[in-house]
Amino acid sequence: MLPGSSIGQRLVLTSFGESHGKSIGAVLDGCPAGLEIDEKEIQQILDLRKPGQNLISTQRKEGDVVEIISGVFRGYSTGAPIAMVIWNSDQKSKDYENLKTKLRPGHSDYPAMIKFNHYNDYRGGGRFSGRLTATHVMGGVIAKKLLKVTLGIETNSYTCQIGKIRMENKFTKKMISSIYKNEVRCPENKTAKLMRASILDARKNGDSLGGIIESITTNVPVGLGEPIFGSLESDLSKAIFSIPSVKGIEFGSGFKGSELYGSENNDLYTIKRGKIVTKTNNSGGILGGISNGMPITMKIAFKPASSIARRQSTVNIRTKKEEIFQVKGRHDPCVVPRAPPVVDSLVALTIADHALIAGAIKPVL
Amino acid sequence: MLPGSSIGQRLVLTSFGESHGKSIGAVLDGCPAGLEIDEKEIQQILDLRKPGQNLISTQRKEGDVVEIISGVFRGYSTGAPIAMVIWNSDQKSKDYENLKTKLRPGHSDYPAMIKFNHYNDYRGGGRFSGRLTATHVMGGVIAKKLLKVTLGIETNSYTCQIGKIRMENKFTKKMISSIYKNEVRCPENKTAKLMRASILDARKNGDSLGGIIESITTNVPVGLGEPIFGSLESDLSKAIFSIPSVKGIEFGSGFKGSELYGSENNDLYTIKRGKIVTKTNNSGGILGGISNGMPITMKIAFKPASSIARRQSTVNIRTKKEEIFQVKGRHDPCVVPRAPPVVDSLVALTIADHALIAGAIKPVL
Amino acid sequence: MLPGSSIGQRLVLTSFGESHGKSIGAVLDGCPAGLEIDEKEIQQILDLRKPGQNLISTQRKEGDVVEIISGVFRGYSTGAPIAMVIWNSDQKSKDYENLKTKLRPGHSDYPAMIKFNHYNDYRGGGRFSGRLTATHVMGGVIAKKLLKVTLGIETNSYTCQIGKIRMENKFTKKMISSIYKNEVRCPENKTAKLMRASILDARKNGDSLGGIIESITTNVPVGLGEPIFGSLESDLSKAIFSIPSVKGIEFGSGFKGSELYGSENNDLYTIKRGKIVTKTNNSGGILGGISNGMPITMKIAFKPASSIARRQSTVNIRTKKEEIFQVKGRHDPCVVPRAPPVVDSLVALTIADHALIAGAIKPVL
Amino acid sequence: MLPGSSIGQRLVLTSFGESHGKSIGAVLDGCPAGLEIDEKEIQQILDLRKPGQNLISTQRKEGDVVEIISGVFRGYSTGAPIAMVIWNSDQKSKDYENLKTKLRPGHSDYPAMIKFNHYNDYRGGGRFSGRLTATHVMGGVIAKKLLKVTLGIETNSYTCQIGKIRMENKFTKKMISSIYKNEVRCPENKTAKLMRASILDARKNGDSLGGIIESITTNVPVGLGEPIFGSLESDLSKAIFSIPSVKGIEFGSGFKGSELYGSENNDLYTIKRGKIVTKTNNSGGILGGISNGMPITMKIAFKPASSIARRQSTVNIRTKKEEIFQVKGRHDPCVVPRAPPVVDSLVALTIADHALIAGAIKPVL
Repeated sequence: MLPGSSIGQRLVLTSFGESHGKSIGAVLDGCPAGLEIDEKEIQQILDLRKPGQNLISTQRKEGDVVEIISGVFRGYSTGAPIAMVIWNSDQKSKDYENLKTKLRPGHSDYPAMIKFNHYNDYRGGGRFSGRLTATHVMGGVIAKKLLKVTLGIETNSYTCQIGKIRMENKFTKKMISSIYKNEVRCPENKTAKLMRASILDARKNGDSLGGIIESITTNVPVGLGEPIFGSLESDLSKAIFSIPSVKGIEFGSGFKGSELYGSENNDLYTIKRGKIVTKTNNSGGILGGISNGMPITMKIAFKPASSIARRQSTVNIRTKKEEIFQVKGRHDPCVVPRAPPVVDSLVALTIADHALIAGAIKPVL
Repeated sequence: MLPGSSIGQRLVLTSFGESHGKSIGAVLDGCPAGLEIDEKEIQQILDLRKPGQNLISTQRKEGDVVEIISGVFRGYSTGAPIAMVIWNSDQKSKDYENLKTKLRPGHSDYPAMIKFNHYNDYRGGGRFSGRLTATHVMGGVIAKKLLKVTLGIETNSYTCQIGKIRMENKFTKKMISSIYKNEVRCPENKTAKLMRASILDARKNGDSLGGIIESITTNVPVGLGEPIFGSLESDLSKAIFSIPSVKGIEFGSGFKGSELYGSENNDLYTIKRGKIVTKTNNSGGILGGISNGMPITMKIAFKPASSIARRQSTVNIRTKKEEIFQVKGRHDPCVVPRAPPVVDSLVALTIADHALIAGAIKPVL
Repeated sequence: MLPGSSIGQRLVLTSFGESHGKSIGAVLDGCPAGLEIDEKEIQQILDLRKPGQNLISTQRKEGDVVEIISGVFRGYSTGAPIAMVIWNSDQKSKDYENLKTKLRPGHSDYPAMIKFNHYNDYRGGGRFSGRLTATHVMGGVIAKKLLKVTLGIETNSYTCQIGKIRMENKFTKKMISSIYKNEVRCPENKTAKLMRASILDARKNGDSLGGIIESITTNVPVGLGEPIFGSLESDLSKAIFSIPSVKGIEFGSGFKGSELYGSENNDLYTIKRGKIVTKTNNSGGILGGISNGMPITMKIAFKPASSIARRQSTVNIRTKKEEIFQVKGRHDPCVVPRAPPVVDSLVALTIADHALIAGAIKPVL
Repeated sequence: MLPGSSIGQRLVLTSFGESHGKSIGAVLDGCPAGLEIDEKEIQQILDLRKPGQNLISTQRKEGDVVEIISGVFRGYSTGAPIAMVIWNSDQKSKDYENLKTKLRPGHSDYPAMIKFNHYNDYRGGGRFSGRLTATHVMGGVIAKKLLKVTLGIETNSYTCQIGKIRMENKFTKKMISSIYKNEVRCPENKTAKLMRASILDARKNGDSLGGIIESITTNVPVGLGEPIFGSLESDLSKAIFSIPSVKGIEFGSGFKGSELYGSENNDLYTIKRGKIVTKTNNSGGILGGISNGMPITMKIAFKPASSIARRQSTVNIRTKKEEIFQVKGRHDPCVVPRAPPVVDSLVALTIADHALIAGAIKPVL
């Protein structure tokens, strides 16, 4: 398998398409036969990622209408690869003509041009565009359903920090229903309002903000993940770093944990309702790379969006001279609020892959 | 390729062995023909990882003598897989007999038993032991040399934090020669002393410490990494999380960067000695998953070692009752000082893999 | 990578779709950036495979109009995956309703039903249909062009036997231009007429015929293929057996060669126009799995088409009773004449993959 | 995964070593935990492949003593990779010094030198030596046992033709016990004698012979193999062509079948002891690439051994002049009698791999 366009071992997602090409699409291979699959369910989650819904995201209107073009027969997966496509529209490609020479700070423009010797489709970031995360969601919704139906596994991701504004309380199960009640996808409504205001503020100033998403996955059986190179942390991080703007990830107590003593950070075992559990969850549900039955928790750092309305100095790749540059087009002042469905999707794809590898899900349901 | 025992696409490292089995070993496949390879060079770096060297690491004496058993002919790689083996010795396996039932907090014992239905070799952590990182180094030294010889790429990793003790100054090139001048592998000698003291202190208290390693790779050409799932961050993080105890990773400004504005975090382009560079390096040398020619920088969080001498409460997996447990055997009070050669190795393996994929290194030198 | 839907290591073809679903399609990943790509060129070759063109093939009319939906920008490959789709039409799915219970002799119906627990799309053979070889051609035309443009490599495949009717003379370069001059794709026009007559005869009798295709690839550089499991023969045969109806393959002197003495079968080296060549080519251009610069030659055995108009006895999978069965729908009395473009495609995909692996073709042209 | 040194998706065999290096070895990854594994069982089958046992094979004495160095604990597989090694001995490397310049006809010498720019280990064929098939057997014996223990699957391979001497009768179950009763591995004792005589005759004349091996695998469940690129025929042929000297393979009626009418070649379904079976087995147990429950049968063509004692003309790669050449060293006049355990091994590895993929064997027994 080539790196780049595909991910997974038993449940393989192949992504194709470019921001301003004809289409973006995904081929999900290895989905067990017999799973009920409904285009509408996929659409519903895609709509949660879709831009143009509110003031805090880009004003581009992307229809993002998904069409399943293979692998589903009479409403069920057949065991054959499931191909899905979204036809692009509402691109304003000419906004991007100056990208041929002027390198946008923080974007992939420069390394992409060098890597592909200027043959890359630069319009709207082309293959590197955040738009491609819609292909993650296409496959992810199916993976999520597979996990739910077969093992009762659930993944919930939410915004826990925007810029310097953090949630005040620890996340609890009760908060799940509140995540999508606001535009920021923060389950603490009060904090969400502050976050929203700070995003609008950044936008007004021609600037952008980053933030942190936390993801919690429950009901994972003990024993998923492979020793050493196939650790759950290895494969989850690999998947998550495919999201543009992600620059950090930590599991459980993470960076904070590296400041603790072993006696503080070790999770002690106990018995709860006949089951072996740990009293704390500093491990984030993963020991030695393998799930231990506790919730899998991770925090993901997103950098502030690179496209800002301000004038920035840059370099013209032809003339090799510095120039002043102003990003045109319509952009997200903060991509974090659109990311929870993407994080959910990549977590679900990775865990479903490992559930298939471990034999916890069978190739035919 | 199975997840777990192998990593890489064009330069593939397969690891085998267990902590207390006959041997541990590595097969490196895809190394270009014509690279000068010397067992002694590998041994030298293995010795930097070796335990039992000083008071701050475990008192186990592992000879760790590497033997190349295929793939090298008259001092040069032949293009065939390079197999290397270390014969285990000085194991005191009976120290571990109580691991059959009592679950060590923070270790993989519990998920490993469930995953492999008690067929796993539990002695000394078996397949999950930190000892297996010697197999990473076996392959990593060759990858590092390949990068140095062909592209002039260098990777340096060092301890920048132990517990709450941090380096005071930013790392500079000049510090490289100081990394291995102390046992802690911190290039700031004054800080190294404090770190060492805190490790000895933790040890005396039957406790352990974690810390942070920073890794910097220079001279990486522009254009390594593949869009989306094969981003350099994806593959570097996948590799790094194969190290036991690692719980977090960040590139460039990382988690801190998510609190900045886009106008603060964007790295502006300029021209320096005729080359396009950025004025700052908040991206950690990677944009859109692709190297941009700036140094690749990452920080890696290690949790405090799980094996501590203190009595901890745990569960007996047979009786399903809580019991008091005390880890026996000889253990590291802090694994961080032994980790820099391991981090170097995994970074080098990943970047060499991508250099081969991108055609920057040819299959025959 | 999952087995089944994808093939290749550096040039990866992923196939999707079913005979009577919405579409069939292909994603070609790893095509170097900078190759000129024209939908029309692909269409032209697809048309040579297309059914319904004459009396010796099925009367189904498959439009087989290919549409490139990603990876090509301003007429050139960008380095991103190239997705292509053909929208299905003219399916008469109700012809196939009895396939739900009655097992067609010689077809995949029975193992497919068991494998996928009846969730498979059985219409027209579904995922197993010969129609899917159009996806091989989509990718193969691009691979063929890549080989031609970069290395001057050419592949020509032709019908050398139908039933018991064989070509009289050995194939020569001059015959290349005659291959597509008749419906049978046999460059010996006299023999082609006999072959055509025998196919029409079989058809009239409600029967079918098989045959043999020979494939010759010239200008292959010395050194493609990997020792042991990645031998050219390994990878070519793997690719070729993905064609439904193929039941045998041999390289060079093949099965005949196993009856010769070593002194007869060995190809002796000599010098011709300053180049090292062999006087004979019993090896079929491959020694130790590696190309030796001589033409790569192989013969491929196709069984007679399984769908015949005659009444055959079979078993009803529900009642587990024998029943009489007659295949309905429109079928090929002999698939061999439609196969040369498919064979060409799989040979080109495999050799291009190995040329990329060996560094003979660069990732960016 | 790199092509070349590894094969398989869920059960992965990695081969390393060279004919005259320190060792040859294998790493088998993905073997389910809980399989009883005995070094002696592997040794027993290796001994059947070992040279130097009789007059019809090479007089080299290869000890071929296998040593398991990881992955087995207290007699059972642990789920970790199983590494095995054979230490080389009795090499007479100086026999091969003239191989640096003179190209042996029929051998890989020439393409290997070009491919690896003369860095390859040429002694005794190095990485390309038939000796490496011992690594296939190391893994194959375990795969064979896994299939036997879990699914009752058995593979038997035997010599059915040497040169032009063929078995007279069709193979039957009763013959299984006779395969290893003679040196030729032909279950028809009378024919075996003729074959033996013809091999000795060829040897006396400084010549060599080829032949054909048939392989039959019984008790394969319905449904192994993946549609299109992962067909059983694809993966079996890929594995089989990794054996040096193999130049052809056919399944079921194979090349003969391509001369039949569909009405003759189709296998009609019927019910036998409540099970769906076919009356004939022209398909060789594989339909649409998937096992249909009938015995999997294939014939494999071996070319006559390339190393012959006669003087042959060849080319000196340095001077680019023709020279007379005589192969020195000790060689097999016919490799076919040593090949049945190798064929068994590759068939077992491939079918076990597909049984794991299909979920017919679980990751933990």
